[in-house]
Amino acid sequence: MLNLQTHKARFTNPLYLESGRILEPYEIAYETYGTLNDDKSNVIVVFHALTGSHHVAGTYEGESKAGWWDGLIGAGKTIDTNRFFVICTNVIGSCFGSTSPMSDNYPSTEPFRYKFPVLTIADMVKAQYILFSSLGIHHAFAAIGGSMGGMQALQFAQRYPNFAARTIVLAATHATSAYAIAFNKISQEAILKDPAFKNGYYEKGAFAQNGLSGMAIGRMAGHISFLSHSSMSKKFGRDYVQNDGLYELFGRFEVERYLEYNSYNFTRWFDPLSYLYIIKAINIFDLGRGYDSLADALKHLKTKLTLISFKADLLFLPQESLEIHQAMQANNLPSTYIEIDSNYGHDAFLVELELFKEHITKALQ
Amino acid sequence: MLNLQTHKARFTNPLYLESGRILEPYEIAYETYGTLNDDKSNVIVVFHALTGSHHVAGTYEGESKAGWWDGLIGAGKTIDTNRFFVICTNVIGSCFGSTSPMSDNYPSTEPFRYKFPVLTIADMVKAQYILFSSLGIHHAFAAIGGSMGGMQALQFAQRYPNFAARTIVLAATHATSAYAIAFNKISQEAILKDPAFKNGYYEKGAFAQNGLSGMAIGRMAGHISFLSHSSMSKKFGRDYVQNDGLYELFGRFEVERYLEYNSYNFTRWFDPLSYLYIIKAINIFDLGRGYDSLADALKHLKTKLTLISFKADLLFLPQESLEIHQAMQANNLPSTYIEIDSNYGHDAFLVELELFKEHITKALQ
Repeated sequence: MLNLQTHKARFTNPLYLESGRILEPYEIAYETYGTLNDDKSNVIVVFHALTGSHHVAGTYEGESKAGWWDGLIGAGKTIDTNRFFVICTNVIGSCFGSTSPMSDNYPSTEPFRYKFPVLTIADMVKAQYILFSSLGIHHAFAAIGGSMGGMQALQFAQRYPNFAARTIVLAATHATSAYAIAFNKISQEAILKDPAFKNGYYEKGAFAQNGLSGMAIGRMAGHISFLSHSSMSKKFGRDYVQNDGLYELFGRFEVERYLEYNSYNFTRWFDPLSYLYIIKAINIFDLGRGYDSLADALKHLKTKLTLISFKADLLFLPQESLEIHQAMQANNLPSTYIEIDSNYGHDAFLVELELFKEHITKALQ
Repeated sequence: MLNLQTHKARFTNPLYLESGRILEPYEIAYETYGTLNDDKSNVIVVFHALTGSHHVAGTYEGESKAGWWDGLIGAGKTIDTNRFFVICTNVIGSCFGSTSPMSDNYPSTEPFRYKFPVLTIADMVKAQYILFSSLGIHHAFAAIGGSMGGMQALQFAQRYPNFAARTIVLAATHATSAYAIAFNKISQEAILKDPAFKNGYYEKGAFAQNGLSGMAIGRMAGHISFLSHSSMSKKFGRDYVQNDGLYELFGRFEVERYLEYNSYNFTRWFDPLSYLYIIKAINIFDLGRGYDSLADALKHLKTKLTLISFKADLLFLPQESLEIHQAMQANNLPSTYIEIDSNYGHDAFLVELELFKEHITKALQ
């Protein structure tokens, strides 16, 4: 059975961050699935992506859509909750229950807003490691994540080499490229320049009704970066929205309607300050920073690494996963590199499960 | 010698547009280079891209940068102005002197703004054909253009098959893809949602000083679509702007500074309504519309076609040029297809002249 449970943990000790700053206290929202066995040997840690949350699988009452990797995780599924105890936390900085820019800046009852510290991927996984320790979990059968979740999986394996026996990284990179940073720049600029954003001093819940156009514009760029030329052509072609006139200046193609609908919808449930902080963490992610080389950064890894990349992923190229694999090989460390032949684009890790399920199964053997 | 001359022609007869609407009167700004020979057999027509202008070559007094294809066109250059009479017009709808949304809506002295008719690529080339006719030019040795200029070259060859003996099309397509439309959507949305745009009722010259952030945000998306993952990595890597702190939320990578600088700069000299109208013309461009197939649309072509595509062009894929070539072949019409091995991206047609000059020379033989 799935046995979906949601939790929130509160920590009153300071969390020391890479920037030199401190979060104190802080909270972490998380979900678990399945049942922890007696010797705690059946833990699988899942890390979420930029706009994901700890709600990975199952469906809450009243919810129309299941968790974001429901096709992969559940009773009898690839990550079988009859066998494994799965845990996923909302990263700090995100807006689904963990401490974030709109949390109260204790002891004040005002939100942090820009007083929130810049976070790194290493800070995110540190908070998670502390949570797992507090639950008495010091080892995992496996850790897995895609996109920013893959960055966390890599960073976790590097910082806590004795934790996960297996690490599976999908559609990720060891250092965010100029191309990906450029896409994020559009979001940042569009949010900052939207007067409704009020330079970060908007009311809580201000965008629940009508959204925030600046963030929607940025999200359109996001959607483009998550898809590919080919997947867009397949999905939309040059279909025109019915009743929109071809010679009307604002007549729309279906792809335009899709971008409008999904982007504005997104801004009703995602917080713009969280977005700014998380894309910052993604932009400055560089596993090799402070090391002589990527191989040097990975030399103490003790996990069995599986890297899954997608051919048409324009955000994090297969080449970037391959570089991690080669660095592992240079260290004589166990690594498997898989390039999935998919034209879908970056989002393949969320959408084309059938193409890589077998590789997850294999990695979990 | 270059013999750069700028002109403006005014037409008082109505220009009948594809939409069923009319422009009357209308003006066309254009530049010429070289000298028209006695039998008018040395004409080369050049078509410009989205944000280009009729200023293709040479440098005006006080100008810091030469025309946009100065590396290709001039005395002794690939398109030799000692031999050829080169002519390039500013497309109608654009903001460099031809009739555009900010022109007076005659007989009123108020700008058209949204009363300006939606234009198509076919409308643009029709206006140019009328201009050439008025100059007594009924045939061209060759016609050439890249990106939207390539669309015009194709459309021109299709509508006026007896005009150009040779047509050279770079980095273009026969029908704009969903992917390209999606990029344009970001620009449209960002311009429309910027309060300084005033729903199109801004003052003339309002953005000459501080630019228009909505258009800058859209232009950032443009820059991404013109470049490639690889060219961005090569150009910027992960270099951080000096004096910007890594742990400052708004500390910047060099790629971010580049996007900011170039995008805001662009908005000081390009009109946002022109931008909206031109991206609309690009979006709805489909050479095969109204025909059974692309081959059917091309069957009356009498020009020797040369198609030059660029491997890493994400906006207009080599595949799309290849489809034109195949349609020409299906019609037993003369066509040469060249794919340039470049990682630069779409902008290669403006930047990597050395990679394709020889093919232009060959096409002009």
